Amino acid sequence: MKLLLTLASAAALSAPTRLPALAADKQLKTIFENNRRWVREEVKKDKDYFNRMASGQSPQILWIGCSDSRVPANRIMGLDAGEVFVARNVANQVIGTDMSMMSVIQYAVNVLKVPHIVICGHYDCGGVKASMENVDHVPPLENWLRNIRDTYRLNRQELDRISDKDQRTRRLVELNTLEQAFAVFKTGVVQRRRVQTYGSDQEPYTQPRIHAVVFDPGTGELKELNVNWKQELDKLGPIYNLYAPETAEARAERLGDGGAAAAAPPPVEPAKKKGLWGRLRG
Amino acid sequence: MKLLLTLASAAALSAPTRLPALAADKQLKTIFENNRRWVREEVKKDKDYFNRMASGQSPQILWIGCSDSRVPANRIMGLDAGEVFVARNVANQVIGTDMSMMSVIQYAVNVLKVPHIVICGHYDCGGVKASMENVDHVPPLENWLRNIRDTYRLNRQELDRISDKDQRTRRLVELNTLEQAFAVFKTGVVQRRRVQTYGSDQEPYTQPRIHAVVFDPGTGELKELNVNWKQELDKLGPIYNLYAPETAEARAERLGDGGAAAAAPPPVEPAKKKGLWGRLRG
Repeated sequence: MKLLLTLASAAALSAPTRLPALAADKQLKTIFENNRRWVREEVKKDKDYFNRMASGQSPQILWIGCSDSRVPANRIMGLDAGEVFVARNVANQVIGTDMSMMSVIQYAVNVLKVPHIVICGHYDCGGVKASMENVDHVPPLENWLRNIRDTYRLNRQELDRISDKDQRTRRLVELNTLEQAFAVFKTGVVQRRRVQTYGSDQEPYTQPRIHAVVFDPGTGELKELNVNWKQELDKLGPIYNLYAPETAEARAERLGDGGAAAAAPPPVEPAKKKGLWGRLRG
Repeated sequence: MKLLLTLASAAALSAPTRLPALAADKQLKTIFENNRRWVREEVKKDKDYFNRMASGQSPQILWIGCSDSRVPANRIMGLDAGEVFVARNVANQVIGTDMSMMSVIQYAVNVLKVPHIVICGHYDCGGVKASMENVDHVPPLENWLRNIRDTYRLNRQELDRISDKDQRTRRLVELNTLEQAFAVFKTGVVQRRRVQTYGSDQEPYTQPRIHAVVFDPGTGELKELNVNWKQELDKLGPIYNLYAPETAEARAERLGDGGAAAAAPPPVEPAKKKGLWGRLRG
């Protein structure tokens, strides 16, 4: 009990003011009423709306975001049901040992073949703020937050230089988002698909394409992080690349177009090898 | 590669028809344009909309749902940004060793003190369908799907009796949802909060209240599963209850209202002890 009290009194994790309506609605009748109204409205606008939904999904985006109630993916991006495959957890983490996220990415990339992965952080993130406190938020949550503390450590020099606490927190939100975007690149599933689609005639660009964005609940703005992907991935490639650059012969065999294609890509020079990850960004 | 091909050819996990617009939008300009339009519209309707968002979140519902793009929580329930804390993974699983989900539940229950947890499955669920195939969908996804195979096993007698494949799949969707709702009840975090709020004057009912619902993408309907909670939880309580029934003295001490309250709840009779979980449903 004492730990819970400590937790409740921590600034970042303060108990919310309660919106009375849904709390008082013991049976949650509101959501079922709202649902029936939504169905009526959609069918009125488009009588085939749900018939199309019945035929399966073909989302073009995997969204990896925070569980925070103020960050609903579809609304923020103005996209309809059926357009975004979604994973949400505390502080939008992409952790290599997290079977949940790894399964989501595998499904989205290998099965749905999404061309885009959007990893979205947000300012005023309770998880990020909690990770900046010297407080034990008790397991499993505290273990989860440790991944953000690790990101602080990787960027300590930059962060410690920011004297304003709010500004430092905002920057950690951005760096956390970026680090999770890198974590998406690290997965074998994503790298394999990018190798397969690199230079392929069947896709207009290497896929999946990864977008690091941050949402500001205070303004509603969704903005892309300013990243020099080439530079960042060139740095990380030598450690995290799981696939060596493809030889011309292997490419020809894969694409099944005989000798003609074999001549197309110039042989990879040793000096460029470590840049594969970056080049695959293309 | 061969495994991937096997996977792609499996009926439940077939590659989707591609919606061309977002796939062709390499920089995802669409979502940023949509976002700016959304901000303008919200501010036009209510100039303080984002100012309120800036002041933090106080969601009344934790939604645990599938990543499937056709099941966006807010839209289905007609709720606004700020009203639903969301966790989504493949086939809405609640697995005891999943740090991601356990952290989400801990945050939602201990910090946000949500009065409701909605666990939502949906018909035509790719994860559930995949779990009914004798196909190796390769790790980590296949390990993830095993949890649904386990639910099939627990309900084999009922499921094997349903000769129509579609009907059997629909029933497994329901049973999977129910089993994950039980898994929410199993957590110490939820049980502890329910013991704390049981009979408390500060809350109108024992919290969090758990709702098992299924969404039908083919009709848009969100429906509550027909469950005899008391009966189900009475069966499971003796195995999963982590807290013994509270004595009158302990309750008085906890509520800090001296001798008066101590007399209020009748002493728990041994025969009723195993029903605590069910009674706490109240």
